[in-house]
Amino acid sequence: MPPAPARWFASDNAAGAHPAVLEALVASNTGHALAYGQDDWTRRANAAFCELFDRDVEVLFTFGGTGANVVALSCILPPAHAVACSRWAHIAVDEAGAPERFLGAKLVLLDSADGTVSPDDVAGLSTLIGSQHHAPPGVLSLTQTTEMGAVWGVDALRETCSAARALGLAVHLDGARIANAAAALGGRDALRAMVADVDVLSFGGTKAGAVYGEAVVFLDPSRARHAMNLRKQATQLPSKMRYIAAQYEALLAGDLFIELGRRANASATMLYGLLRDIDELDLGLPPQANSLFPRLPSTVKERLQEWSFFWDWDPRDRRVRWMTAWDTSDDDVMRFADGVRWALEHADN
Amino acid sequence: MPPAPARWFASDNAAGAHPAVLEALVASNTGHALAYGQDDWTRRANAAFCELFDRDVEVLFTFGGTGANVVALSCILPPAHAVACSRWAHIAVDEAGAPERFLGAKLVLLDSADGTVSPDDVAGLSTLIGSQHHAPPGVLSLTQTTEMGAVWGVDALRETCSAARALGLAVHLDGARIANAAAALGGRDALRAMVADVDVLSFGGTKAGAVYGEAVVFLDPSRARHAMNLRKQATQLPSKMRYIAAQYEALLAGDLFIELGRRANASATMLYGLLRDIDELDLGLPPQANSLFPRLPSTVKERLQEWSFFWDWDPRDRRVRWMTAWDTSDDDVMRFADGVRWALEHADN
Amino acid sequence: MPPAPARWFASDNAAGAHPAVLEALVASNTGHALAYGQDDWTRRANAAFCELFDRDVEVLFTFGGTGANVVALSCILPPAHAVACSRWAHIAVDEAGAPERFLGAKLVLLDSADGTVSPDDVAGLSTLIGSQHHAPPGVLSLTQTTEMGAVWGVDALRETCSAARALGLAVHLDGARIANAAAALGGRDALRAMVADVDVLSFGGTKAGAVYGEAVVFLDPSRARHAMNLRKQATQLPSKMRYIAAQYEALLAGDLFIELGRRANASATMLYGLLRDIDELDLGLPPQANSLFPRLPSTVKERLQEWSFFWDWDPRDRRVRWMTAWDTSDDDVMRFADGVRWALEHADN
Amino acid sequence: MPPAPARWFASDNAAGAHPAVLEALVASNTGHALAYGQDDWTRRANAAFCELFDRDVEVLFTFGGTGANVVALSCILPPAHAVACSRWAHIAVDEAGAPERFLGAKLVLLDSADGTVSPDDVAGLSTLIGSQHHAPPGVLSLTQTTEMGAVWGVDALRETCSAARALGLAVHLDGARIANAAAALGGRDALRAMVADVDVLSFGGTKAGAVYGEAVVFLDPSRARHAMNLRKQATQLPSKMRYIAAQYEALLAGDLFIELGRRANASATMLYGLLRDIDELDLGLPPQANSLFPRLPSTVKERLQEWSFFWDWDPRDRRVRWMTAWDTSDDDVMRFADGVRWALEHADN
Repeated sequence: MPPAPARWFASDNAAGAHPAVLEALVASNTGHALAYGQDDWTRRANAAFCELFDRDVEVLFTFGGTGANVVALSCILPPAHAVACSRWAHIAVDEAGAPERFLGAKLVLLDSADGTVSPDDVAGLSTLIGSQHHAPPGVLSLTQTTEMGAVWGVDALRETCSAARALGLAVHLDGARIANAAAALGGRDALRAMVADVDVLSFGGTKAGAVYGEAVVFLDPSRARHAMNLRKQATQLPSKMRYIAAQYEALLAGDLFIELGRRANASATMLYGLLRDIDELDLGLPPQANSLFPRLPSTVKERLQEWSFFWDWDPRDRRVRWMTAWDTSDDDVMRFADGVRWALEHADN
Repeated sequence: MPPAPARWFASDNAAGAHPAVLEALVASNTGHALAYGQDDWTRRANAAFCELFDRDVEVLFTFGGTGANVVALSCILPPAHAVACSRWAHIAVDEAGAPERFLGAKLVLLDSADGTVSPDDVAGLSTLIGSQHHAPPGVLSLTQTTEMGAVWGVDALRETCSAARALGLAVHLDGARIANAAAALGGRDALRAMVADVDVLSFGGTKAGAVYGEAVVFLDPSRARHAMNLRKQATQLPSKMRYIAAQYEALLAGDLFIELGRRANASATMLYGLLRDIDELDLGLPPQANSLFPRLPSTVKERLQEWSFFWDWDPRDRRVRWMTAWDTSDDDVMRFADGVRWALEHADN
Repeated sequence: MPPAPARWFASDNAAGAHPAVLEALVASNTGHALAYGQDDWTRRANAAFCELFDRDVEVLFTFGGTGANVVALSCILPPAHAVACSRWAHIAVDEAGAPERFLGAKLVLLDSADGTVSPDDVAGLSTLIGSQHHAPPGVLSLTQTTEMGAVWGVDALRETCSAARALGLAVHLDGARIANAAAALGGRDALRAMVADVDVLSFGGTKAGAVYGEAVVFLDPSRARHAMNLRKQATQLPSKMRYIAAQYEALLAGDLFIELGRRANASATMLYGLLRDIDELDLGLPPQANSLFPRLPSTVKERLQEWSFFWDWDPRDRRVRWMTAWDTSDDDVMRFADGVRWALEHADN
Repeated sequence: MPPAPARWFASDNAAGAHPAVLEALVASNTGHALAYGQDDWTRRANAAFCELFDRDVEVLFTFGGTGANVVALSCILPPAHAVACSRWAHIAVDEAGAPERFLGAKLVLLDSADGTVSPDDVAGLSTLIGSQHHAPPGVLSLTQTTEMGAVWGVDALRETCSAARALGLAVHLDGARIANAAAALGGRDALRAMVADVDVLSFGGTKAGAVYGEAVVFLDPSRARHAMNLRKQATQLPSKMRYIAAQYEALLAGDLFIELGRRANASATMLYGLLRDIDELDLGLPPQANSLFPRLPSTVKERLQEWSFFWDWDPRDRRVRWMTAWDTSDDDVMRFADGVRWALEHADN
């Protein structure tokens, strides 16, 4: 096989941290700073978020993404209510039941092909409301970029949010890959428009180039009333918080996170362009952000995974996931495309 | 007042990261590494822990200390049982109810002056066993170094563990400051002896000089059967795990964590030595590790806190806490002692 | 319209208690008896269950059916695991999230038309096992009679149980209407065969003719190890337990519960027979136990509901539920059939 | 020994149901009635509660007392808050951790000799408020009659409630034995005064002469907003609710429950009067309601328990509990007193 790329197409969390982000972390390692958020980095990062969203947001840093989601949901879910989300939602599929356990709540799954949810399906939740036998949905949790690599258009997102509002539901947006979506939709203005109807946002740092650290952003600060205690109760209160805040300062400075999202997206588009002419390869839809979900014959798949690792996605469907990251280089993409082409050509050996 | 020290005596989590630890984190930022623990740093750190304890331990890294405790407890607590601990235990006092929420369990508090628990008080838990009306204790959770700055002697710790065993309880050791205890008791051999009767240990990294990251160490690996799923469910599965593992590699190399614990302890002892001749100052007992709990007149206290911050401990008792860290310098200690002496001398102005 | 029947076809829990059951409750109201199960009625009812199942079962009485299910599941679900069940399961649809809240666990829904689950769908759960990102299924919960009125044949039930066993799952059977199933399949022998691969059974009393009270029957008594504490923790420990035990004694004496199930089933069959000739009426499948799920034009439906109440089932499908009870008389059935016929004939007015 | 009494002094839940209450249950067994509270008995019982408290209360029936407490607390506890209660509270001592599990919340125990709590101790909870490291108390749960047999005076109760209000806490009253307290304080007017500052009351039926069934009474109906769903989620929604409602109708008719409480109290007072002259018997304080907590030599205790059973209370203190019930007769009291006297006189044999 041709030489393997320097970086895998396994996941954006296999990537390292961006140098500017890591430098900011290192630079914050200076003397003593009070723990638990009473430090200058945290204050500055909060201000940077207010500026980013052009309004008075309340920000709570957490260690990880599942933690951010769980904290966010716990702040807006009324007692004895359920969380509605797509059947592909990370909170439903990939968090090992953490939301059910911390919230003590049911997740109601809505049908979805690409991780988005239609306003009609949200409206259909009305049948669960008003009976003491059902846990009525109290929150709609959406994901942007979705787990299937789709990017909600601003209007589509707002229509689905409106359907939720019409039923009295609060809206959570899982933005573990919000950077890729912001980049795909044109940047900071699109980001602001995207969250117009969102109560609380999980703003991803780790997949966008950080070492660790996520941010729970309350677009509606009144929702943050019990947030600090809930964060601690969810085991998500970082003691040396400056190290997370410093990374976010770097990510937000000059919209670096959007630039990094843009790079990852461009690599996925480039990969798609290099392979789309191969008739026998079902690449799926063109990437909207930083992932492709091709179908591969299993011998080809296994040979490729040994050569440069990536994850199976849906074994029943023989789909895999190729995901780019902020640090995927053009050379990585070209080598990977070469390898795929080579493996398909030598599929029978 | 005299010039303030460069570092506070507020907490060991106000300290930064040790250069070697931070360098290890930075050095691990090289290319792609699979997430969630499937990386070389994690493998090496696991091996280092086996070597440290001289047995086959199972190690799970977590983001933070409350998370480590909650994961550890969830792995060893039988259904419908309670956790017994001292009334000063961090899990009981300072974790905002995280254990109760994640475990769905009651904490039964045992009387204690200094954070240690007597074998007799443990034996007294027998009255809660055998009735369907009570949640029987299933785990005894101890802390070393205790929240009150006490260091369990190896024999005392083992006697209390034995009392727990006699009732069929598993034993958890909250070692957020295990480095200080290991240093106080003489190092690696003492550490190994300390955990002889412990099922699972929260091995603190953050307070010992790390940026972030804790380790749940299963001295009895059979207890780790469901640990990986429980960690994820507790929102404590780090995606880019190499950054935590790399820090632990550095902390364990050459027993650096013990050396850092020793430095912090030495600073506390030095501070005590510099101030013990002041008759009107109730310094409390000599420090066993890295903290003193003196009583101060409130005007003196407030003047000192403005000058170089530290925390109140028990307002009813007018006690404060002075805590040293791995980076507290002799100069810091001397300046702080000078300030205290000055403030007491000028108490009336 | 013709005269309405004396009893509704709304639900078997709208029926009262059978005279023999009520008499047993009344007869147990004699002097003092120790609370919480230390009474003679409870001992005798336990013995009657052992005789019924012809083996050494462990029985815990609870107040209600949701409580029985939650207690049963909590006894057999391993830590951090999920419960798999049909998408029609009472635990998933009609318990307001009680299982998620008490268990802290996710429910994984399996596709189903009639409330039964295929061995293949159970086998497909294997994809959720072995990853730290998913809550692996630890229990398969089935319902007999299903919520859609289907009765599992003994062989079909055992095949699905075997598929669960093959994956290492424990099996719970929600038998809120086990009496109807036992009657449909021929009685006591069928009942014994039905539970051959079941770990724990919720044995319904309320719908079978009791005032209140359900029984959690551990076919595998080793699963009951923590059951008494879990029952209390689930708020399901009755203090004056003799009143429930006495009712079960009456229900089990001479297999009264099976006779009552047989009566309810016969009424449903009779109703189906009286209406099957009406071409324009979609009655659904012939009843296997005590319910029919016909489709009705909405004006007809509303007129009938005002006349003799019954519940809508699936509004999207225009299906309603007609359910018979142990006390439904032939006269009730004939009158109800007459009313349905009349309403359909006068549908246009 | 002299002949044993016909009824034990073990507990008021060892007593049966009062004839009028049982008759009401039996009389409600007439034809069909919609389940889950949509029946005439439930409507009438609700109205009777409004009349009893002379205001518009919201009432939810539950199966049992632990269930009533858990439902009540879940309706008034803010997110991430703790429940404060006396260290003798039933919710803390005798409910096997059910509150911690369902609420996911910590219980903060307040010191108490007799089950009452001082306003000062409540005020001291302020130190737990305002820190993200603690679960701030959100509810004060008190018990009337207390678990130690004390009856709060109306003024004392209101002062402690006021201290809770001053900190922003809601107030729950566990009234499993409210009937005895109402009787002790003079009846209906005292009952109304008692709950003047209470948000939600667990109104005991079982110990007051019912077969089963408790009532959660929302003195502030706005607190009941999510109550129906929380009740179902707590597994405490009775299906055939008429049977509980009918019993409450009977208990409230002509203030029967107060009369029954009065009888139990009178028996305890009579027992105290018959034994107070025995110098070597430490009877404890005169009974305020229906229990005494004497100290007995262990041989005397065991001989008496074999003769007519009662429970140990605090083994460390050699205290036992003698408890009367609504059905304790004068003859029972006289025989029991004779037996105690006899056993003490023959203590050495």
